[in-house]
Amino acid sequence: MITVLAGGVGAAKFLRGLVDVVDPATVTVIGNTADDEEFLGLHVSPDLDTVVYTLADVVDPEAGWGIAGDTYTALEQAERLGEEVWFRLGDKDIATHLLRTRLLRGGQTLSQATSAIAAKFGVGCKLLPMTDDRVRTVVTTAGGEISFQEYFVHRRQQDEVRAIRFDGIDKARPAPGVIDSITQAGAVIIAPSNPLVSIGPILAVPGIRQALADTPATVAAISPIVGGRALKGPADRMLTSLHHEASATGVARLYADFLDLLVLDDEDAALADQVEALGVRAHVTGTIMRDAASRRALAEATLKAIS
Amino acid sequence: MITVLAGGVGAAKFLRGLVDVVDPATVTVIGNTADDEEFLGLHVSPDLDTVVYTLADVVDPEAGWGIAGDTYTALEQAERLGEEVWFRLGDKDIATHLLRTRLLRGGQTLSQATSAIAAKFGVGCKLLPMTDDRVRTVVTTAGGEISFQEYFVHRRQQDEVRAIRFDGIDKARPAPGVIDSITQAGAVIIAPSNPLVSIGPILAVPGIRQALADTPATVAAISPIVGGRALKGPADRMLTSLHHEASATGVARLYADFLDLLVLDDEDAALADQVEALGVRAHVTGTIMRDAASRRALAEATLKAIS
Repeated sequence: MITVLAGGVGAAKFLRGLVDVVDPATVTVIGNTADDEEFLGLHVSPDLDTVVYTLADVVDPEAGWGIAGDTYTALEQAERLGEEVWFRLGDKDIATHLLRTRLLRGGQTLSQATSAIAAKFGVGCKLLPMTDDRVRTVVTTAGGEISFQEYFVHRRQQDEVRAIRFDGIDKARPAPGVIDSITQAGAVIIAPSNPLVSIGPILAVPGIRQALADTPATVAAISPIVGGRALKGPADRMLTSLHHEASATGVARLYADFLDLLVLDDEDAALADQVEALGVRAHVTGTIMRDAASRRALAEATLKAIS
Repeated sequence: MITVLAGGVGAAKFLRGLVDVVDPATVTVIGNTADDEEFLGLHVSPDLDTVVYTLADVVDPEAGWGIAGDTYTALEQAERLGEEVWFRLGDKDIATHLLRTRLLRGGQTLSQATSAIAAKFGVGCKLLPMTDDRVRTVVTTAGGEISFQEYFVHRRQQDEVRAIRFDGIDKARPAPGVIDSITQAGAVIIAPSNPLVSIGPILAVPGIRQALADTPATVAAISPIVGGRALKGPADRMLTSLHHEASATGVARLYADFLDLLVLDDEDAALADQVEALGVRAHVTGTIMRDAASRRALAEATLKAIS
């Protein structure tokens, strides 16, 4: 049994490779929900959706999120009606959010709604939100505090991030199954996602970080920083502006209290000693996921390094 | 100032003609909301939307409802996700329902949401729901009680209607402005809509029927039954199965306690005496609205008969 802590696009690609080499039924995914937001009155869970769409092979391959070939008729009409439409919800995508919103309004938990949606898309993994409670990432920029999606999508990550907090995190409880999936796993993998705003909120849910420290399973992470740069998104700038090191070593340092193994890219082979000095075993391999073969190879290399 | 009691397609066509011959700002529309229903978790107000879309000249001219050239991408996806999709919500149409649902969830009344939506579509009339309270038409068929939309859309009006009731009507209050718009109108017009399930719920809201009886304004109706048949929908069969007469006379009888004038079609000229025997003045003219010119002509003839 493998449990994967997952953000959005990077995590989804890794998971897509993983289920090519292991039975999806043996994989539990704990997804970040601190990016969740309401748009047009719909509850959108961007990271969970990216995982579902990618595992269901319906994801837009260019963007890495959304549904391939989707149209924007409803959104364009909403714009004519004066609604805020900077978050690009496609027509097919809206069907997902309508379903989730309907289930939540009907009294289901986010866990239940997520499980229902994943099943409808034929996802074979177990997909758990990190929590059923409301947690929202809030980012401090020069202009003050803004929501994560305001920062990430609307303002295109142009602001320097001066602080991050997870609103609601103190009262958040791990969703049912989350702690057990960590403590009873054969292996735990932290996907190559932003350590601060994708993995960070998951680790901040009370009980999860401790479970990672306590689990007898090997806890591995794949560095999302290669050659000092994030493969996607603003993780490198964010690490720097928040006084971390934008490197595989910096990532290892953030996870050092529970991490057994860091998978880092060939390009960063020279950092292996730094990582091992933190008490974290380093495994160097190709980590760039360009296609199905490289995704699969990364999953295989990670599993081999764990075993 | 003219106040029009309106159902869906027939009323919308009449109103579209009316605003060609009078300033829309002088027209108040009281719309039926007992057909409202939740689909995909969205609050849909079919009759209000038909009025808005028709007055905004975006209505699908073939169907008489929905938005011209709309697509069904979200709905088709919702069907793949196992949702009930017999109520055909188009992608553009969904933007309306998303907006309404968002406003209602945010605490606005249906009056406020309706006013906002009408304004965004550039509708110049004042559009009022009959009530801000929840009223739902329930139809008794051989199989038992079903919702109006279940009967009307899903089962395509194939069932014989044995009874009609308006769930919630006892506690419903007329929406703000409704009673004043009747008592202070220069004229009140009952649009050519189904007298039982479109106009019937409006009349059943406590206070409205009495206001129609009390108003000093002339109260006119246009018969939706021509030659014993409904121009659209099941009104004729419904009148018969509920022991009314499927004729202009039958319509006049349903409204006789407050009606001053019935506009009936040339084809029904022979019924004028019957109508007048009920104490209702009869005015015979062409009532079939085939195009813009005939819609306008009906509005003109109605106004002339009133004055």
